[in-house]
Amino acid sequence: MKIRTENGIEEMRPFWFKDNKLFLIDQRKLPLEFEIFEARTLDSIVYVISQMVVRGAPAIGITAAYGYVLGRMGGREHTFDVLLNTRPTAYDLKYALDHMVKAEEDGKDLLMAAREYEEMIISKCKKIGENGADLIKDDMTLLTHCNAGALATGDWGTALAPMRVAWERGTKFSVLVDETRPRLQGARLTAWELLNEGIPHHLIADNAAGHYMSTGQVDLVIVGADRICRNGDFANKIGTYEKAVVAKENGIPFYVAAPVSTIDRSLSSGKDIPIEERSQDEVTNFRSERITTLETPAKNPAFDVTHARFVTGFITEFGILEANTLLQKL
Amino acid sequence: MKIRTENGIEEMRPFWFKDNKLFLIDQRKLPLEFEIFEARTLDSIVYVISQMVVRGAPAIGITAAYGYVLGRMGGREHTFDVLLNTRPTAYDLKYALDHMVKAEEDGKDLLMAAREYEEMIISKCKKIGENGADLIKDDMTLLTHCNAGALATGDWGTALAPMRVAWERGTKFSVLVDETRPRLQGARLTAWELLNEGIPHHLIADNAAGHYMSTGQVDLVIVGADRICRNGDFANKIGTYEKAVVAKENGIPFYVAAPVSTIDRSLSSGKDIPIEERSQDEVTNFRSERITTLETPAKNPAFDVTHARFVTGFITEFGILEANTLLQKL
Repeated sequence: MKIRTENGIEEMRPFWFKDNKLFLIDQRKLPLEFEIFEARTLDSIVYVISQMVVRGAPAIGITAAYGYVLGRMGGREHTFDVLLNTRPTAYDLKYALDHMVKAEEDGKDLLMAAREYEEMIISKCKKIGENGADLIKDDMTLLTHCNAGALATGDWGTALAPMRVAWERGTKFSVLVDETRPRLQGARLTAWELLNEGIPHHLIADNAAGHYMSTGQVDLVIVGADRICRNGDFANKIGTYEKAVVAKENGIPFYVAAPVSTIDRSLSSGKDIPIEERSQDEVTNFRSERITTLETPAKNPAFDVTHARFVTGFITEFGILEANTLLQKL
Repeated sequence: MKIRTENGIEEMRPFWFKDNKLFLIDQRKLPLEFEIFEARTLDSIVYVISQMVVRGAPAIGITAAYGYVLGRMGGREHTFDVLLNTRPTAYDLKYALDHMVKAEEDGKDLLMAAREYEEMIISKCKKIGENGADLIKDDMTLLTHCNAGALATGDWGTALAPMRVAWERGTKFSVLVDETRPRLQGARLTAWELLNEGIPHHLIADNAAGHYMSTGQVDLVIVGADRICRNGDFANKIGTYEKAVVAKENGIPFYVAAPVSTIDRSLSSGKDIPIEERSQDEVTNFRSERITTLETPAKNPAFDVTHARFVTGFITEFGILEANTLLQKL
């Protein structure tokens, strides 16, 4: 991914493993502060995932893979379970840990296995970009929700990958970015990534997406996914479901970009996906500032489930698939 | 409306005219600060409407009526136009000003005419509450968007009026309150009003409304309206359209509560309603704090338009009407 620094534009990744430490751009601080977090132990990896120093399903998987390395280096017995319990909704977490357990059983070098996993995910993301780029035509306005960019995957992203590839190919388009309350991943992270890549964009309140869709100002919606079921139902950042329903109402193509590792074949439909309920404070406060009465409680589901019937197609590393053909690629 | 103060619960209104001044609770400061704004001149009335010291279509109308009094007392010639141009979307503004012009033409006392207008609006709101209260049954969970309470109307509210009346009658229910980005009228104002009235409620991110609707956790949606067209299309706070579409998708009754003065008979459909575009800063900043990159631009439509087909009924002072019977009551 491109990052604008004082020295110009640098090509880098949002996390890298070196000297037995995982270094991560602290995504809680972006875009106005740029800080690197150092994780040296399994416990600190648990912290970075659960506290969202890093977020995004594929990035959580990669981080967990390195966490597995650090856990086993430290001789920790319950490494798999400890990491699996950091966050409940993203399926990549289990997929990554299964990869690491298999590598360990096969007697492979764990660090090598984690690096392989990272490269595999990133190459899948690039492929997603190549497979989805042709959906984007000159003068289109796209809508995306939350952050499914390089920060969420290591590089390229999922929802943002087709945009990056299309932009590199010279297609001219612009993006409406939902701010994505309560944690503002759209405002903070997606806007920052698009700015760095030079892709024109506007930030909107989540509430405004419907207005732009109903007035003919959105041509294409692309979002990521945290978990996809066998039937194509999927979980993604809270609010995705509303965008999908409104897109369908207005006849706007709605695509989900994700590697097939996001598919949880054990789940037959979306009603079985566990939805993480996060702290009330994320809704009642803006950072440390209270935005409602001191006595008002809040509810804070971090994800919602969208039924497969709202999805025009899944942009995967194997091409653009319909819900009923997803399983053939697993 | 009830307001909890250090002396217990007091019954008061959000604005009152005394000694040739309009006093208003400064709605920009609620709920953590309680400040009274004094408006003595036409210019200060223009400020309180355009800067949203007061907001909500009926409350804007009442404030403009008193502004008309102050403008004419000050001998200002263009009082009508100056006030009409403060905000573009709410129709009550024109309705109130027409009332004042007619009173002046009829040689009536202007202050008396403004007081009459205020009492007329508030009594209509109470009637809306009585007409809508039976929609609310024990154990229901309601959803509302933005603030259509006493702060927005002088007392009772529109969307909140049926809730207040039902609560007074002993019906037990609770309310999910959309925070309503970008200006957080739900988090700041509706939560505060419901707390003061003793009605159980939870704050949610706007993005979460769809999740609760699709999982069977919302029984009834009630919102207000800023302008209603002849065919029943209506404008309300940005985000209302998404809630209406998702409510219909899930078979949840969706009601619009408004006095018939909100109907603009000059407009045949919603596409003709002027939509106010407010400052980008409301989206790029949280109060004074920047939430996105310094270079990211934003778009900020303050309202959206919902087609009449999404509306189960209009709760008015004349009863619950369907879109095609609205005009008969004008």
